Amino acid sequence: MNRITQKLLGLVSGLSGRPGGAYNIREDSRCAGRQNSEHIRIEQKTDKPGIDIIVRAGTRGETVYIPACITHSAVDDLVYNDFYIAEGADVTVVAGCGVHTEGEADSRHNGIHRFFIGKDAHVRYLEKHIGTGGGTGKRIIDPQTVCEIAEGGLLEMDTAQIRGVDSTKRVTRARLERAARLVIREKIMTYGCQSAVTDFEVELNGTGSGTDLVSRSVARGESKQLFRSRIYGNAACSGHSECDAIIMDGAEVSAIPELTARHVDAALIHEAAIGKIAGEQIVKLMTLGLTEEQAEAKIIDGFLK
Amino acid sequence: MNRITQKLLGLVSGLSGRPGGAYNIREDSRCAGRQNSEHIRIEQKTDKPGIDIIVRAGTRGETVYIPACITHSAVDDLVYNDFYIAEGADVTVVAGCGVHTEGEADSRHNGIHRFFIGKDAHVRYLEKHIGTGGGTGKRIIDPQTVCEIAEGGLLEMDTAQIRGVDSTKRVTRARLERAARLVIREKIMTYGCQSAVTDFEVELNGTGSGTDLVSRSVARGESKQLFRSRIYGNAACSGHSECDAIIMDGAEVSAIPELTARHVDAALIHEAAIGKIAGEQIVKLMTLGLTEEQAEAKIIDGFLK
Repeated sequence: MNRITQKLLGLVSGLSGRPGGAYNIREDSRCAGRQNSEHIRIEQKTDKPGIDIIVRAGTRGETVYIPACITHSAVDDLVYNDFYIAEGADVTVVAGCGVHTEGEADSRHNGIHRFFIGKDAHVRYLEKHIGTGGGTGKRIIDPQTVCEIAEGGLLEMDTAQIRGVDSTKRVTRARLERAARLVIREKIMTYGCQSAVTDFEVELNGTGSGTDLVSRSVARGESKQLFRSRIYGNAACSGHSECDAIIMDGAEVSAIPELTARHVDAALIHEAAIGKIAGEQIVKLMTLGLTEEQAEAKIIDGFLK
Repeated sequence: MNRITQKLLGLVSGLSGRPGGAYNIREDSRCAGRQNSEHIRIEQKTDKPGIDIIVRAGTRGETVYIPACITHSAVDDLVYNDFYIAEGADVTVVAGCGVHTEGEADSRHNGIHRFFIGKDAHVRYLEKHIGTGGGTGKRIIDPQTVCEIAEGGLLEMDTAQIRGVDSTKRVTRARLERAARLVIREKIMTYGCQSAVTDFEVELNGTGSGTDLVSRSVARGESKQLFRSRIYGNAACSGHSECDAIIMDGAEVSAIPELTARHVDAALIHEAAIGKIAGEQIVKLMTLGLTEEQAEAKIIDGFLK
């Protein structure tokens, strides 16, 4: 595990050194460390790059770390990680990805994650993305998350991409059975010439299933953001999607939510708002002694918290 | 003007007989009556079917009627109507279309309306669509409305399609200059195997321009509705889009609003909600002595009012 990986691990997973319990650390398309725990087994795939993470029944409040780091230019990393979560298990998955470039060539991480969440299982999924380094090569992260949530299962996704990623396309697909739930909280900030695309698609197939998608973003500089969400209500279910974006400088933001109700007891709601920071908020903080830049930073911090 | 036209005119324009002032009545692709007024001139187009409606400066609070009626099966009517509204004029346009079929063949009215709204002019545009008759031939109405609104101009569109139209695609395009405004209120009810598509696209190009789009709909039976809106904020502007739909029986409703902010001072908001009538509302009205059907009808009436 090289020094850059050590630094990135702290940024994306809050780790200093190797964690206790189950983990798999991916460094420049190779495995830089792996450990199983009593309840969680991690197995190398044999047909393609990636791992299977098998969380056994009886797992309670355990955390598994599977960060991926790219530490130089000219890496194009593609990985398939599958999560098998047994009935009734309760687990936290800390994913996250850091891409560091010093050179002129682009580096990219493309992680395709599939979750098979058993009956009444509960997964918290934390995914932080970051780009670092002074290279002109683009830092690209394109995550795909595909979820099948069985009866009574719950997936809580918490994703954040606050700095350094030049281009990202974030695709999430989910199918929910009876009484299953999916909660997503997304935070994105882009600046310079960065671009970020979010694309959620949720099928509410089971009676009593529900989803709550909330995206908050800040677009600065000349950056571009596109938020898409599609919720299909195919049963008695409830769905809510919300997209709030702060636009600054010469940025461009699009929000395209899509609701489709195919059942009389599907209740679907969407809200979206795009606007700049209110002038009064800045003036108020400036009267408390902050400079304009400090006031702006404070408001953005609060918005993305 | 035949009897069916006379009846349809009452339904779509509230007319009993010919109005005073300017009007043009279209019956089965022909002109069934036309009149100019001091301020409003109506001219037959020479290159294609349709009329030019020229509203002179100085027009104040006048109403022009241009209803179109189709009174039998197997009519495919296509008409181009252009409205030239002079600077500062204030006018109400009552359009509206009724399609009546008794036979097996479909009948269709496709009205392509272009509005050129001058500086500080104010247009109220009322458009009611209805289908009548016992024929199995489909009643199809596909209106297109294209609007150019100059500085300070205002267009208020009020559209309603409550019964009898089997298939409709309603396309509205608008470009707004400085301080121009576009307000749309749309009401739709579909039932049986009907389908209704709404497609709004508004470009807010001028400083201080604004739009407010509100669509309310009820989908019953096996009917299908699709609501699309796109608002582009290309200047310091404000845009609001709202879509509320009641879903009943085996109906399907989709809402796909799209907001794109390309200017730091563009403030754009969208809300959408799809759901059924709340059970408590029905129970409450039933305790006041209404039957379930009466309670439902009362709630829908209120919702579409």
